[in-house]
Amino acid sequence: MINEFYKNMLSGKSVIRQLSEYATARGKEIGYENVFDFSLGNPSVPVPDMYNDEIIRLHRESDSMYLHGYSPSPGIYEVREAIAGSLKKRFDIDYKAEHIFMASGAAGAIAHAVRCVTKPGDEVITFAPCFPEYHPYIEHTGAILKKVPADTESFQINFAAFEELLTKEVQAVLINTPNNPSGVVYSVDTLKNLADILSRKQKEFGHDIFLISDEPYREILFGDKSMIKDLYPSRYYDNTLSCYSFSKSLSIPGERIGYVAVNPAATDADILAVMMTQISRGIGHNCPTSSVQRAIVPCLFETADLSVYEKNMEILYKAFVNLGFSVVKPSGTFYIFPKALEEDANAFCMKAKDYDLILVPSDSFGCPGHFRIAYCVDTEKVERSIPVFEKFVKECYQNG
Amino acid sequence: MINEFYKNMLSGKSVIRQLSEYATARGKEIGYENVFDFSLGNPSVPVPDMYNDEIIRLHRESDSMYLHGYSPSPGIYEVREAIAGSLKKRFDIDYKAEHIFMASGAAGAIAHAVRCVTKPGDEVITFAPCFPEYHPYIEHTGAILKKVPADTESFQINFAAFEELLTKEVQAVLINTPNNPSGVVYSVDTLKNLADILSRKQKEFGHDIFLISDEPYREILFGDKSMIKDLYPSRYYDNTLSCYSFSKSLSIPGERIGYVAVNPAATDADILAVMMTQISRGIGHNCPTSSVQRAIVPCLFETADLSVYEKNMEILYKAFVNLGFSVVKPSGTFYIFPKALEEDANAFCMKAKDYDLILVPSDSFGCPGHFRIAYCVDTEKVERSIPVFEKFVKECYQNG
Repeated sequence: MINEFYKNMLSGKSVIRQLSEYATARGKEIGYENVFDFSLGNPSVPVPDMYNDEIIRLHRESDSMYLHGYSPSPGIYEVREAIAGSLKKRFDIDYKAEHIFMASGAAGAIAHAVRCVTKPGDEVITFAPCFPEYHPYIEHTGAILKKVPADTESFQINFAAFEELLTKEVQAVLINTPNNPSGVVYSVDTLKNLADILSRKQKEFGHDIFLISDEPYREILFGDKSMIKDLYPSRYYDNTLSCYSFSKSLSIPGERIGYVAVNPAATDADILAVMMTQISRGIGHNCPTSSVQRAIVPCLFETADLSVYEKNMEILYKAFVNLGFSVVKPSGTFYIFPKALEEDANAFCMKAKDYDLILVPSDSFGCPGHFRIAYCVDTEKVERSIPVFEKFVKECYQNG
Repeated sequence: MINEFYKNMLSGKSVIRQLSEYATARGKEIGYENVFDFSLGNPSVPVPDMYNDEIIRLHRESDSMYLHGYSPSPGIYEVREAIAGSLKKRFDIDYKAEHIFMASGAAGAIAHAVRCVTKPGDEVITFAPCFPEYHPYIEHTGAILKKVPADTESFQINFAAFEELLTKEVQAVLINTPNNPSGVVYSVDTLKNLADILSRKQKEFGHDIFLISDEPYREILFGDKSMIKDLYPSRYYDNTLSCYSFSKSLSIPGERIGYVAVNPAATDADILAVMMTQISRGIGHNCPTSSVQRAIVPCLFETADLSVYEKNMEILYKAFVNLGFSVVKPSGTFYIFPKALEEDANAFCMKAKDYDLILVPSDSFGCPGHFRIAYCVDTEKVERSIPVFEKFVKECYQNG
């Protein structure tokens, strides 16, 4: 008999998807170049040639069984070893191949990490604003998701609210920095403070609390890129599982490749990746594509040209400040998250839609009254959108 | 806190994996060519050039965002359409793109199919002998797996035992034809009989019973290949979800590509694939690799050269008959499943190991007293193994 739970989910379509579908349909009417589609977080810069070259080389030169054969359950050993080496070099944490579990993107990584350190009925805390998919990611494991209200001044952590929710039932805390949708990066102070509280509470409760760090935007950092090391959450808290995806850094979201990196000082660090292979058996995961695993190896110190995102951010941030928006300046990702000009972000975004500005209202991110712009689009289009924003704001909010 | 359920699974290592690891280690000692490693079902013939050529062409010529961008949740529409078309042509069932859900191999396909038509606590029936992974595949969804004892004379279905287990609590029935480990293909009579019983019981119970048909070996059919159409389970029973993988037919198990094909006459056929995308959100699946999805399109009427498997089967079958084994002749796959020469198949396989014959005892397949040979190896090696089998049998079982 058909599963009613999943059947009922069909009526709750994602707002982001709906907007993106609207934008595509509207584009067919008036030309897609005339729709300012800021709905989807789809990378807009090409993959580095290095990646395609390696795929081509592998398919041209490799033995068929070597290239297309089953990958071992936790991933291909040499690939895990190369990733461990690159993380060690960059973040100065002594990862070995054994600490790396290859996953099909960050979604797959989180699916394994959460199941590994919680059981059904346990509580997991995350922080608003957050990616709406955290609900199914957490809740479909049987765990309960609790959300700390946003600190809308800075989009760092609201620690008072966090400590209130951090009861003995909490087994894991899920963070996302650089953050979707705010574009904010947790500061060193935030990370240290978070680590201090977790360490204290672990002792108090007498059980481990794991930090699951969702890091698909890790490489999209604005300003001083050398800060990346200091902003790596696992450096501050041993019980950290870092969930990474190459989707955004290499612009290959369709290739479904990422990993979980278990901090070598975590409790049972040596068995967590193997436990994840047991989880895979039940959820039908069975490793990312083997050829893609191999092809990322030469690209581990490489990214697509991500500079366009910072350029777009600067243009939009300046424009929003000029237009009188209350907005926190992003330090990474390809999102910006200003406060809407009326309380109801849905109404605000509906009005913007009349100007062919496709903005995502913030309610599904757990932080009402804001809107998200995904500026992974051509700079030329971002520039063309500014006068449209000016017109929209003037006509809808300054003529009263 | 670490999940004890998955932690405890670490002690229950798969027998097949252990044997395969032993074979690899032994190969390092005496040369892998001297180890008759029949443990693993890993295809031994190369992928068709057509597949590699298409991957190379796509990576050389495609726009980066087209090739590497997110695939829609149920899979790329044109790919689903092409698969639906190929199935329609071959099996004369009116599939449309809407009935195809792209999955990362058969494991991923089953993970979605089972969750789609059962809920935790429901019962699922399968038939011994069966792939040991059916336990986690079914049980980790929360459903209960019940196994119909084998008909060891033919490895068709033991219908009397099936009807006994087929109570109102059963929501799905999982079959695997051509079968791992027996190599047997369900006959038209078996499929018709199964369909009749399911149709009758649906009425009696007043609820749908879905047939989940696991078909990774569909293309590896011996003898008259034109029989493939008549042996397609979905032709006999509308509520069928066919779970396919290209792993064996194209020799690309590492590329993780397959699908669920929903019979268009099934209950709610038009929404099942969309429901599967909801399931994906919770288990972190998010489609197979987009470039691999595209690359299989030109290969939909193509296979690797699978003739070696039939050749190997004939050599082994003849040898086993000559040696006095009781053995059912396989009609497909790359497995054969003879009766061991003593009751304890483990003891039998342990003795064979002394001759560097790596055979898998049948207990984990739910059918004691047999052993599985995976003859996806070079014919030359199969031929060399025959005198070794003769020596083993003579020394261990004919000198008493």
